[in-house]
Amino acid sequence: MSAYKTSSVIQAPNAPDPRSSIAKERDNIQFDTIKMHHFLEGSKARSELFLQLTQQMERDPILNTDLKYYDLTKDEQRELTVHKINRLARYIEGDNFSDFQRRLSIVNAFDPQVGTRLGVNLGLFLSCIRGNGTAEQLGYWALSKETAYVKGIYGCFAMTELAHGSNVMGLETTATFDQDTDEFVINTPHIGATKWWIGGAAHSATHTTVYARLIVKGEDYGVKTFVVPLRDANHELNPGISVGDIGSKMGRDGIDNGWIQFSNVRIPRFFMLQKFCKVSKDGEVILPPLEQLSYSALLGGRVIMVLDSFRMAARMTTIAIRYGIGRRQFRPSGQEFEEGVPENQLLDYPLHQKRLLPYLALAYVFSAGAYKVERTIEDTLTLLDDAVDNDDDAGIMKAIEEMKSLFIDSGSLKSTCTWLAAEVIDQCRQSCGGHGYSAYNGFGKAYDDWVVQCTWEGDNNVLGISIGKPIIKHVLAVIDDDKIVKGSSAFLTHTKKYIGDNYKTPILKTAADAADLKLILKALEVAIIRLSYRASESVRKHNFEYVGPESVEITRLKSHHYLLEEFLRRVETTEDKELVPWLTLIGKLYASGIILEKFAATFLTYHVATTDFITEVSSNQLPSLLQEVRPHAVAYTDAFQQSDMMINSAIGRFDGNIYENYFTAVKELNPPRNFKAPYSAALEAMLNRKSLDERNRFEKTDDAAEMLSK
Amino acid sequence: MSAYKTSSVIQAPNAPDPRSSIAKERDNIQFDTIKMHHFLEGSKARSELFLQLTQQMERDPILNTDLKYYDLTKDEQRELTVHKINRLARYIEGDNFSDFQRRLSIVNAFDPQVGTRLGVNLGLFLSCIRGNGTAEQLGYWALSKETAYVKGIYGCFAMTELAHGSNVMGLETTATFDQDTDEFVINTPHIGATKWWIGGAAHSATHTTVYARLIVKGEDYGVKTFVVPLRDANHELNPGISVGDIGSKMGRDGIDNGWIQFSNVRIPRFFMLQKFCKVSKDGEVILPPLEQLSYSALLGGRVIMVLDSFRMAARMTTIAIRYGIGRRQFRPSGQEFEEGVPENQLLDYPLHQKRLLPYLALAYVFSAGAYKVERTIEDTLTLLDDAVDNDDDAGIMKAIEEMKSLFIDSGSLKSTCTWLAAEVIDQCRQSCGGHGYSAYNGFGKAYDDWVVQCTWEGDNNVLGISIGKPIIKHVLAVIDDDKIVKGSSAFLTHTKKYIGDNYKTPILKTAADAADLKLILKALEVAIIRLSYRASESVRKHNFEYVGPESVEITRLKSHHYLLEEFLRRVETTEDKELVPWLTLIGKLYASGIILEKFAATFLTYHVATTDFITEVSSNQLPSLLQEVRPHAVAYTDAFQQSDMMINSAIGRFDGNIYENYFTAVKELNPPRNFKAPYSAALEAMLNRKSLDERNRFEKTDDAAEMLSK
Repeated sequence: MSAYKTSSVIQAPNAPDPRSSIAKERDNIQFDTIKMHHFLEGSKARSELFLQLTQQMERDPILNTDLKYYDLTKDEQRELTVHKINRLARYIEGDNFSDFQRRLSIVNAFDPQVGTRLGVNLGLFLSCIRGNGTAEQLGYWALSKETAYVKGIYGCFAMTELAHGSNVMGLETTATFDQDTDEFVINTPHIGATKWWIGGAAHSATHTTVYARLIVKGEDYGVKTFVVPLRDANHELNPGISVGDIGSKMGRDGIDNGWIQFSNVRIPRFFMLQKFCKVSKDGEVILPPLEQLSYSALLGGRVIMVLDSFRMAARMTTIAIRYGIGRRQFRPSGQEFEEGVPENQLLDYPLHQKRLLPYLALAYVFSAGAYKVERTIEDTLTLLDDAVDNDDDAGIMKAIEEMKSLFIDSGSLKSTCTWLAAEVIDQCRQSCGGHGYSAYNGFGKAYDDWVVQCTWEGDNNVLGISIGKPIIKHVLAVIDDDKIVKGSSAFLTHTKKYIGDNYKTPILKTAADAADLKLILKALEVAIIRLSYRASESVRKHNFEYVGPESVEITRLKSHHYLLEEFLRRVETTEDKELVPWLTLIGKLYASGIILEKFAATFLTYHVATTDFITEVSSNQLPSLLQEVRPHAVAYTDAFQQSDMMINSAIGRFDGNIYENYFTAVKELNPPRNFKAPYSAALEAMLNRKSLDERNRFEKTDDAAEMLSK
Repeated sequence: MSAYKTSSVIQAPNAPDPRSSIAKERDNIQFDTIKMHHFLEGSKARSELFLQLTQQMERDPILNTDLKYYDLTKDEQRELTVHKINRLARYIEGDNFSDFQRRLSIVNAFDPQVGTRLGVNLGLFLSCIRGNGTAEQLGYWALSKETAYVKGIYGCFAMTELAHGSNVMGLETTATFDQDTDEFVINTPHIGATKWWIGGAAHSATHTTVYARLIVKGEDYGVKTFVVPLRDANHELNPGISVGDIGSKMGRDGIDNGWIQFSNVRIPRFFMLQKFCKVSKDGEVILPPLEQLSYSALLGGRVIMVLDSFRMAARMTTIAIRYGIGRRQFRPSGQEFEEGVPENQLLDYPLHQKRLLPYLALAYVFSAGAYKVERTIEDTLTLLDDAVDNDDDAGIMKAIEEMKSLFIDSGSLKSTCTWLAAEVIDQCRQSCGGHGYSAYNGFGKAYDDWVVQCTWEGDNNVLGISIGKPIIKHVLAVIDDDKIVKGSSAFLTHTKKYIGDNYKTPILKTAADAADLKLILKALEVAIIRLSYRASESVRKHNFEYVGPESVEITRLKSHHYLLEEFLRRVETTEDKELVPWLTLIGKLYASGIILEKFAATFLTYHVATTDFITEVSSNQLPSLLQEVRPHAVAYTDAFQQSDMMINSAIGRFDGNIYENYFTAVKELNPPRNFKAPYSAALEAMLNRKSLDERNRFEKTDDAAEMLSK
């Protein structure tokens, strides 16, 4: 290159060059990031599918998402979301079901409101019919009426009411059987029973599944599910149906959440979903073997949220780590004033490493957990459907057992992973300083859209209680009756080994223990045992409500146990053996940087770890691990293979050219020509207003005072 | 009342009645909430001023804020913010300075972007001139040019650059002295030096204070401050000035943050702020006694943020607690299916109490801390100004010492309180379940607007490091040289008493210790000492950067020490003695529910508390305290005296009529008449599209296949 070549009007030798920083680190990548992507996506085939689907959407004129996305108003988001759903509807006619699921999981990472608005139809509405309806009912609504192709009808899911959310059994909408007309009468008895938060109800849905109390001959049979048409084929509201828009939300403004009131709306008897529960023409009621079976509609959503947590953590850490590599801040100690000495890269600071790199490890572990729970739900639902199809009662009971276990695993993962992902978004944003607060860097909308995941489809705290409770019950049964616990909580069987005389025997003692991931797994088990044991004593004295906080903590521990166990299994069984040391390093970072950080107080309180161990980990082990991972941070994040479109962040792009990318975007989206605002007249009038005396017609001047006081 | 009187078309005896729940609790209020408000606002007079100012703004047609606020687009927010500033400008012409500060602090609670957009002018711009300019310079810009009345000119504060934020000494904008013309030439050498995030620059500001490197005769004297006009009296950009709008942000969209580039802009020499640093006509440079003096502009903002944290915590806990009183969820255990038995109030659950009530206590403690640091800064700045006015060098040095101490206290409080307030908003939102996610309940915008406080005017982590460092240095000096530490860290002088042989001697041992707030204070001191001691050993082996995480933790501990100490002092000295037991209860809840919860791991690791103590607190002490506070939750929140306008949350209103208020608002803001969206045609076209075969022109049918394969 000619020495006289100029790239801008004036040469500025000190201009920042973040692109070189990241390029240099990429030159030193030590493992195959493509193979790592196979691990992260579960297989080579799935990795390739992921890339193809991403590219297809990236090239799509409507699905493609760029920084303009962050400037959209609520109304614009609502409309664009429909156009995107319309595009996706064309893909769904060609994709097979599992590919389309994969496609949606990618959409969830960069435009979650599209995924959700479509998901209320394909996920919740159809899952509810699949879970509660007969095969024929599913066939009718999903295929004959073409809901599965986002065609003909659009379903929503009317469970939550204004005054009832978590307490599904307490819902108050009624479905009263009218034997004379062979119909159900759906009714909202009062304001509290107004269906609320119903995604799609405000503008999109033609139909809904309704959770309503079945009333037959004056008797209340509890909450069952019904299909109720809301709008006719001309999209006009049916008589007796009132819907409204819930309006602005913290995030996900692209979804038309609404409320619904039913004023004695009549539906044919066969609109009731009757896989498990049936009302005959004569008003005879057959009840399901297990009430919770009808909530299986929510299971699929919970599983998707674990996968979402993986993709979101991957996306956020990618942005923050790329920024941390390109951004420089302060020269090294002692060289503060030496010109020419470059400032330190942000990610070279131990504090910055500690703030970010453990979340990178967390994303890796999420991936393993997400795919396991996804496989499990597929297997379990198939087991259940087969058993129901074959009238196989034993099979049904077996499936119900599996389902219970899945409720625990998916619920604990849902709550723990969605909470952690919210933390990841927030911490990654903070790590980018002020620039993290710009809409164009992606964190704001990501957070606002994300955090509802902690609340919907099972509030995280309520889930925590409902999962902690059976674990504490197991421990009580083990102590009182030597119960043998099965499934993923089998380790509770050995409760007595870790209480009594052994209550204070620590598991984690020496520095080396922090690197022994099997021992960390055991530490989690012992923490669960001892905490549950402590809680069980409170339960004996008080009640289960008293140990709500402990239940939530137990749930958290349980879910990290699940994640670590599955991650270790995946690492042991991976075919790409050359990845094992890199994955093990990540596993250790997860153990020290997440598990031991989050549970230090619990581990110490319950004598799972010694104080020397905790001090050693935080003073030495963790800092060393962070330093070990640091040079490979770009490789670990590149391995997520999230394209610039998915990342959709000016400072998070692959090329690492943070300042140019960001400044260019800001100028394109907000042309500097408009240096006077549309409302500038008001502003200028304020600045150039007359003096106070003049505006007061000189009534308060000394002259006036003199005259008025005469 | 007649038994036949109906309040709605159909009587619904089971309709929820949240209003009665809160009314019943109000009937049992046990302490004088008006007097409590005097305590919270610092005095009876301030309490009354607070109420008058609130009412005045509530009745003001422009300043009044209601739920429509949450539906505004970015452009609408920008414009409305100007109209509000225009109204406030009329008040400022009448208010005295301190009353206006009070007024702004109220505005900050319900419309923070207004406070900030005005604050860049009245706060940052003028504080910078006050802190760095001579009295005459302040008089000229503030009074003669009427900036202080938001008239004539509008200032902004150009410190941060695109590539430099925390490292103020590394800023790259230049101010080169041109002796020939007696001017400074302000220049942006490259993209990285573009002034960035400058509030008010995009549309409002006519002038700015610029932080730029002073270059005189080729020598770089470091970063100094200059007043630079941006726009002329017609609001047209001056030559050489480029500004642009930074566009959408995570929150505070009402502020016109912008970027500025200077292309050799000339200003008269006397536009340099020269209280401490001066350039003579001949290019002779006089430097300030302490470089940091020029950053005192940020001090005021930090103090305001502590007060903001109080008001925000008060506002959020009020909403969440009112909702927790009105909302019912699940019947009591064993009565799940007994009709007529009311469900439990949410706030009666131990977990819910633990999630919310400690934050209520935190708000009380924030109030004490906020007023103390506010008084301190007023005193210190007066001390400094007097000394400078009298050319009193000893006085200046004394003021500088005070200033250093204030940097530590205000910095540690700013970081700790803003982080905690963010947590309060988030946790309060989550405690309201789905309804917390509705924009109309106030949490979403509150959070999005709030979190930038953790980043701006001293990034919380960077502050943490800069405050932890001198504390660790003190400890090193005590150990090595028996240094005697003065000021608020004087307890460090006794470091040796708590290390060595006494390193493992616990401070908190028995249950009773948790109620001894002086002992908790001591525990914080010992935790700071031992953690700093540990960190100092790492510093000897490595360096200060290595102990970044420990520094941040030390800062947090230090700030809780400050808060608790001042709260105790206030309680001891309050004239309303009947409040003391109620305040002491709140103090204990703060200690057990915040301090011991947050620092359990640290207290255990550093042997400040025993495991038995921690177990006892979490299993018994804290649950008892929560139960003790629970019946008075409504009184403690009513005592904040935040009006419905300040609260601005449908579910947070005083009457507690959560469902009616919320539903009415949703219907008013989103008329149910619009059940077809403006974009409905696109949606309907999607649902009613032709079959895939038809859209494919039947090219893929079997018929076509037969013909094409012949």
